[in-house]
Amino acid sequence: MAHPELYLKKNEDIRLRKGHLWVFSNEVDSKRSPLESFTAGDLVHIISSDGKNMGTAYVNPNTLVCARLLSRKANLKCGINFFKDRIATALQLREKLFDKPYYRLIFGESDGLPGLVIDRFGAVLSVQITTAGIDQRKDTLVAALVELLSPVAIVLKNDNSHRTQEGLSLESEVIYGTLPDTVLIEENGAQFKIDILNGQKTGWFYDHRASRAVVAGFAKGQRVLDLFSYTGAWGVPAALAGAADVICVDGSEAALNLALDNAKLNNTVDNMQFIRSDVFEFLKQARLDNELYDIIILDPPALVKRKKDFKLGYEAYRRLNHLALQVLAKNGILVSASCSHHLSRENLHELLRSSGKHIDRHLVFFASGGQGPDHPIDPAAPETEYLKTFFCSVSSSL
Amino acid sequence: MAHPELYLKKNEDIRLRKGHLWVFSNEVDSKRSPLESFTAGDLVHIISSDGKNMGTAYVNPNTLVCARLLSRKANLKCGINFFKDRIATALQLREKLFDKPYYRLIFGESDGLPGLVIDRFGAVLSVQITTAGIDQRKDTLVAALVELLSPVAIVLKNDNSHRTQEGLSLESEVIYGTLPDTVLIEENGAQFKIDILNGQKTGWFYDHRASRAVVAGFAKGQRVLDLFSYTGAWGVPAALAGAADVICVDGSEAALNLALDNAKLNNTVDNMQFIRSDVFEFLKQARLDNELYDIIILDPPALVKRKKDFKLGYEAYRRLNHLALQVLAKNGILVSASCSHHLSRENLHELLRSSGKHIDRHLVFFASGGQGPDHPIDPAAPETEYLKTFFCSVSSSL
Repeated sequence: MAHPELYLKKNEDIRLRKGHLWVFSNEVDSKRSPLESFTAGDLVHIISSDGKNMGTAYVNPNTLVCARLLSRKANLKCGINFFKDRIATALQLREKLFDKPYYRLIFGESDGLPGLVIDRFGAVLSVQITTAGIDQRKDTLVAALVELLSPVAIVLKNDNSHRTQEGLSLESEVIYGTLPDTVLIEENGAQFKIDILNGQKTGWFYDHRASRAVVAGFAKGQRVLDLFSYTGAWGVPAALAGAADVICVDGSEAALNLALDNAKLNNTVDNMQFIRSDVFEFLKQARLDNELYDIIILDPPALVKRKKDFKLGYEAYRRLNHLALQVLAKNGILVSASCSHHLSRENLHELLRSSGKHIDRHLVFFASGGQGPDHPIDPAAPETEYLKTFFCSVSSSL
Repeated sequence: MAHPELYLKKNEDIRLRKGHLWVFSNEVDSKRSPLESFTAGDLVHIISSDGKNMGTAYVNPNTLVCARLLSRKANLKCGINFFKDRIATALQLREKLFDKPYYRLIFGESDGLPGLVIDRFGAVLSVQITTAGIDQRKDTLVAALVELLSPVAIVLKNDNSHRTQEGLSLESEVIYGTLPDTVLIEENGAQFKIDILNGQKTGWFYDHRASRAVVAGFAKGQRVLDLFSYTGAWGVPAALAGAADVICVDGSEAALNLALDNAKLNNTVDNMQFIRSDVFEFLKQARLDNELYDIIILDPPALVKRKKDFKLGYEAYRRLNHLALQVLAKNGILVSASCSHHLSRENLHELLRSSGKHIDRHLVFFASGGQGPDHPIDPAAPETEYLKTFFCSVSSSL
């Protein structure tokens, strides 16, 4: 059966032809195909103004991105075989890259499944659905996951605020199987306890895995300050690698409690400290106290959530990096990250360069990183890239 | 003793204030300080038009970049202590990052020593001097290296064509100690034989080390095509990691002979092949023969050496990547690199995106890399960044 047709205005097929998957509502030829005639989540056949097939998408007449392509084929049946095919391709890449089943299995658009994120915690899957198009098909999705991966539990961690715009409710629920009392994962040779239902996002941030391994590689014997430590994903492997001391600072007591649990799990309690504090206040006090750290990890939550927050957010990043540089030991290392899509790699680059000059130090980047290989970037969709990390070696001014 | 003064024109201090180390000849106030009055290699005191100290530089009146800052301090004495201080700072970073003494020890401007590159091959140092300023002080440099590192040999590998513009001769010579018959290094768990005097550049390319380790991480059981293989730095670790087959292709018989030696050294001869061929011709034939490879490494020499070569060079990169994608197996991995400073990361990004679309495949970047941590990037000097690598997973069109 053919899907209803959604026509684009003239030239509005260019982004799709370049490989992107999104259609914005102002690109639709609303005379030929009024958006109001569609229901959120319906499948549509996207057609260019000159009548060429652009593929099958799901639609939402109420959102700025009103359609997301699922396939370049016309009239795709979005049934269990579609989901199994997409998931199997994603799985094949992850199984090449990782020895053990701990990774982001599906990363939205990059894995050909816009609106869907799945993190694999061994036999437990944590699923985030952000669009009506996927939400409407969640039973099919669950059936596909069960067939392919035989999980013991699938959790819908649907508390992302984007859902509200899509007309979807916020909810966290175990949709399949039974969630074990304790969920453990392995990352960079360490074990971690995950609190899926109460944690941020899916319950874990796999995205910094590769950068965390880099830090562990030079942490031996060093005094490490782990800012916005959350549950210890940077700090614990650094301590395991032989850091002299790892000081985790976070504003959340729940996160620090989990970080302490993780330290216990990995026998790193003796060389770790856990301090509940606002990070700005902590850094200001450290400066007053003339404290110095050999390695500082600065991995704040997104400080530029929306484009219009750019100025304020940029200033917050600038102040944080500036303060951190002031308590960095001579020839120390600053690892500075941003997960804000609206703060570009170039923005962070410039901010670090100018902060280094401002306090009269010679700052070089000896490495830079981004989201790990289980968060692939679609070069046609810049929105799929969000994470950037610079590893700075900071010495006296030349 | 004060150095002669070199005055800048109005506003021509901005680049230096932002952290860069170069002065271009058209930025000099030639009325107050005629360039002709200086001799290549002399130290000068750089002063802004309003009389502010900019630091100490060495000068060359005959080159476009007529002065390079060595220090922000006025009237620096560029003696053995200066070299020892700079080298010790660079060494401290490398010793944090590497267990063994195999790395680029000095990377020019980024390590505060413009015009100088030093690669450390255990007890042997390979030195590249590209400016008159450093060339004039090579005895002091050698003395500093001997004091700090007690090498068995220091080789001057001064065959870089930039030297001609600086008025320096091309030469390769052992300037200190005795060069052993065989120089061995370790990289990514493999051993390699280095031919310093006859090899390209310093005799080895440390810059791709981290990316080569990434390839070894997913090579197990795969059929790997290593294009422009040179002496096997990508191929041997992939074979060691259990690749089913590694096919090294290079135009140079000498390079392939060394690659074979390296395969013998690491007991990987049985799963490696060495083919002497033009890479374009090899790929065209492979396409005709319907050959397919699971992993293709495409690491050509610089194809855009000068800015004016951009168009031709870009087209060569495009054709190479296009041909490689056509012999890549389903769900295969293309590792595509460029060491041309004039081909930007964005250029390579766009070239891969459009090639993927052109042959109707879904191409995503699951990782990207650059020069390793022993080639730090100075954010104030974009020229210090030159290497880019994209790891592409290529599946059927959505």
